[in-house]
Amino acid sequence: MNIPQLYGGIEAGGTKFVCVVASGPGHIVEEVRFSTTTPAETLGKAIQFFQSFIASGKVSSIGVGCFGPLDLNPKSSTYGFITFTPKPNWSNTDVRGALQRGLDVPIALDTDVNAAGLGESVWGASKGFDPSLYLTIGTGIGGGYIQDGKPLLGLLTPEMGHIRIPHSRDLDPFNGCCPFHGDCFEGLASGPAIEKRLGLTGANVPENDAFWDIEADYIASALMNYILVLSPRKIILGGGVMQREFLFPKVCRRVHELLNGYVASKSILENIDDYIVPPGLGTQSGSLGAIALAMQIGGRKIEA
Amino acid sequence: MNIPQLYGGIEAGGTKFVCVVASGPGHIVEEVRFSTTTPAETLGKAIQFFQSFIASGKVSSIGVGCFGPLDLNPKSSTYGFITFTPKPNWSNTDVRGALQRGLDVPIALDTDVNAAGLGESVWGASKGFDPSLYLTIGTGIGGGYIQDGKPLLGLLTPEMGHIRIPHSRDLDPFNGCCPFHGDCFEGLASGPAIEKRLGLTGANVPENDAFWDIEADYIASALMNYILVLSPRKIILGGGVMQREFLFPKVCRRVHELLNGYVASKSILENIDDYIVPPGLGTQSGSLGAIALAMQIGGRKIEA
Repeated sequence: MNIPQLYGGIEAGGTKFVCVVASGPGHIVEEVRFSTTTPAETLGKAIQFFQSFIASGKVSSIGVGCFGPLDLNPKSSTYGFITFTPKPNWSNTDVRGALQRGLDVPIALDTDVNAAGLGESVWGASKGFDPSLYLTIGTGIGGGYIQDGKPLLGLLTPEMGHIRIPHSRDLDPFNGCCPFHGDCFEGLASGPAIEKRLGLTGANVPENDAFWDIEADYIASALMNYILVLSPRKIILGGGVMQREFLFPKVCRRVHELLNGYVASKSILENIDDYIVPPGLGTQSGSLGAIALAMQIGGRKIEA
Repeated sequence: MNIPQLYGGIEAGGTKFVCVVASGPGHIVEEVRFSTTTPAETLGKAIQFFQSFIASGKVSSIGVGCFGPLDLNPKSSTYGFITFTPKPNWSNTDVRGALQRGLDVPIALDTDVNAAGLGESVWGASKGFDPSLYLTIGTGIGGGYIQDGKPLLGLLTPEMGHIRIPHSRDLDPFNGCCPFHGDCFEGLASGPAIEKRLGLTGANVPENDAFWDIEADYIASALMNYILVLSPRKIILGGGVMQREFLFPKVCRRVHELLNGYVASKSILENIDDYIVPPGLGTQSGSLGAIALAMQIGGRKIEA
């Protein structure tokens, strides 16, 4: 019998950590979840979880999709650190170093959205569609653009949730809540922006509330921009806000309307509901994406 | 004596064609310019220009940076065509096929901005900076993003001039002039948008006109979005509007202000005037970019 090689994956979020040992979506051997507290305690728990798998030789590389901002420049003295974050205690945390020292196996670190985008491109909704874009719209907004099976890395990693989009204060007098940019996309359309504006979490705003058309318009404006700049072959929308599934047709219709036939591709003109889609891996894009990261350094080719 | 290999390049613009035979910026052997009239006449002149160089074996590949939109999907039945364009007579023109049939050498076709971006990355202001972004702000607005020495190609080529950006109608009541999107970036900030709004070409609007702060704000909003999405290591601004050099410091200052410290790179925080720059090849980015395209298929590695 052919026993599949196992890998370790950590979805390191600002609220919770998910650690898994798996070979892919059909074979998750063990999983643990715990709250994100201090770096020492949280990374300590992750190290403890993987120790026996590594000691027995079952796991020999670990992928981490981590909240950020992260320093991913291998030449930097703070490579693998969370740099500045409003999350208490986590600024200047050497995530990669701590795990490497605790576990003594190769660690592949990338942003949470890059990991999720990679996971979706290997096993999920963007499998076979390269380049692709994974966007999370939740506590924050961020995007991972996967090309040739790798996340885009330039001067830094993209921070595409913070782009500027049109904001009519007549329709929506809310000032936006991004501490850096006020009414950037994240400042207008993230989960906290909805809650601050309406006094209700997105999950509790009724489906027939007129606000959802405004929200869909912001998301569509941002997607139009990503389409015009990145020309992805598939767009995946994840995150808490997109759990409200009625948003998908609203967003698709509005993107179609805004582009107004300008991007002359059948994917957009005729099949936009198959072009902008929910994650194929459900809520597991992040943890399985971390497994895909581990596979990339695990000396074995990724097999779908 | 080592005679450098020569290549053919065509900067195929909607207004004029520039044809060159060259090995690089220091060695342009011959150059001809003529107006863009009908496809038959214009492509005929280009073919005529190159014929003797090809017959004598001096040129064995030709690069073309062409106005568009272009079909650059090699699997498409209209690969190498200008698809739909408002330019009379040019919709559905098989540019690549016509040149190939007329000259019988390999033709490398790409968009005008991709060619210019490539030329700049080989010999100009973005040499040694990968990924990089070349943006033209003139009759239209378009961008070429060069990664690993190649232009980004996704579902289609990017059309990043048409992104949505904030537009305050109190400050600027102009509706925008993009036939597809009204007040997208191109609709607000291109040369024709300036002329329609003020009744003067950009070249004739006085430097102290308050409008230039509005123009700089549009350009800065778009650049902020490109930086957050593409994270280029260098941004080059070309095109007629950017001939007004006083725009550069205005735009740089405004990008710095808008990003508000969010992209924590010294290139932006401390050296933004070296980050957003004019073309290193002056007005030759396009024609030399076409030479760089020809070199990529000419069986010889690009040498700077």
